[in-house]
Amino acid sequence: MISKAKIKHLKALQVKKYRKQEQCFVVEGTKSVIELIIADYEVTWLAGTEQFLEEQERFLRNLKAEVVLATATELAAAGSFKTNDGALAVARMKANTSFTPDQNELVLVLDDIRDPGNLGTIIRTADWYGVKHIIASEESADFYNPKTLSATMGSFSRVEVFYTDIQMYLAKAGRPVYGAFLEGTDVHAIDFKAGGFIVIGNESNGISESIEKLVTQKITIPRYGAAESLNAAIATGVILDCVRNSKK
Amino acid sequence: MISKAKIKHLKALQVKKYRKQEQCFVVEGTKSVIELIIADYEVTWLAGTEQFLEEQERFLRNLKAEVVLATATELAAAGSFKTNDGALAVARMKANTSFTPDQNELVLVLDDIRDPGNLGTIIRTADWYGVKHIIASEESADFYNPKTLSATMGSFSRVEVFYTDIQMYLAKAGRPVYGAFLEGTDVHAIDFKAGGFIVIGNESNGISESIEKLVTQKITIPRYGAAESLNAAIATGVILDCVRNSKK
Repeated sequence: MISKAKIKHLKALQVKKYRKQEQCFVVEGTKSVIELIIADYEVTWLAGTEQFLEEQERFLRNLKAEVVLATATELAAAGSFKTNDGALAVARMKANTSFTPDQNELVLVLDDIRDPGNLGTIIRTADWYGVKHIIASEESADFYNPKTLSATMGSFSRVEVFYTDIQMYLAKAGRPVYGAFLEGTDVHAIDFKAGGFIVIGNESNGISESIEKLVTQKITIPRYGAAESLNAAIATGVILDCVRNSKK
Repeated sequence: MISKAKIKHLKALQVKKYRKQEQCFVVEGTKSVIELIIADYEVTWLAGTEQFLEEQERFLRNLKAEVVLATATELAAAGSFKTNDGALAVARMKANTSFTPDQNELVLVLDDIRDPGNLGTIIRTADWYGVKHIIASEESADFYNPKTLSATMGSFSRVEVFYTDIQMYLAKAGRPVYGAFLEGTDVHAIDFKAGGFIVIGNESNGISESIEKLVTQKITIPRYGAAESLNAAIATGVILDCVRNSKK
């Protein structure tokens, strides 16, 4: 059973301010909780259904966290989603320290992706295409938002997001910076250099003017129909697919 | 001002059963309402802020619908989203009649896409890549769900979705049927034939067994990292991009 005080704590952690204050976050659902345990996060508390605790015993055996039995109904009530299929856990955030990519590393840069669902889908897509690090503007959606974590489908444990002033970061990066615009070069014709940055713009406004100045190669996903734009996560997928399958 | 009876009616239309019964649906937000008016839907009722009614006067001039003045707060209260930037309208559904694609037409087939946001993003992506018709299994998310319409970003007015028994439909189609699987041919190596069907599988289970039997060419989006799968809408974007830029 989950105590009333714990439920209050879990609910508080749905708010970014409290997550930051406590340096903790909540992960919901069997798949995500297992990914969390396997990854190098420090799990501090875990609640699971009888079935979860039984079936996942091998993952729990060496877990230092406090483990509590709960019904699926209790888990759903304690979490942020309508349903929960077996588990909920609290873990410590990782320090968001500075990050210098490897020389040949492909890095995504997010210029104000505001929707947590989009951010999560972008993280999942990055993970599919072997991108391990994302640099995000400080106004971007929160990595530890439950909707972000859920949309990553477990990829949150393999992709790291660093929040920083992306303008300052790109200005001193000294590497190719690719960004999608309506009037760029066809993304299929680009010979992507290793060690580049791919900038993905905000859902409504695209790439901001200050960042546009730092883009060294404008790229375009050719349009065949009438939609005004592609969803930011879809654009990320198409661009990463082109990078990984480009001529180089 | 929006009457209490009207608010009740608008709330009822958030439920699929009532939409079907009334053959009407609700569209929220300035951009979507304008797309609705421009498209060939019959608008029956419209509420807009003073600013909307003034700025969009050219679209409203010949509108037969009843037009009502409302505040943004009233619009948000009457709709399904937290905020509304100017307008809300009711329109008649189009008849979901049978559909035979043109000989060279590329058609998307959705095998139980359950999430309205995913369906909306798929419709928007289809519109970008010039796909005008989508065949969806009867269990797929509803085209007229407010979340679907919103995620299309206006593309709902240019892409039609037909709900049918997709197994029966594909069985008698006599055209190439492409479907994404883990063990298919690299999607970049395929010479896509004109007039084919692209099947997109369910978010959790992929393409169902009964539909797999009807796929004439299995395709795969190559993976470079560790994510188990791509989001269904992302896969749609990458595949359509490959089709449009394939060797043919």
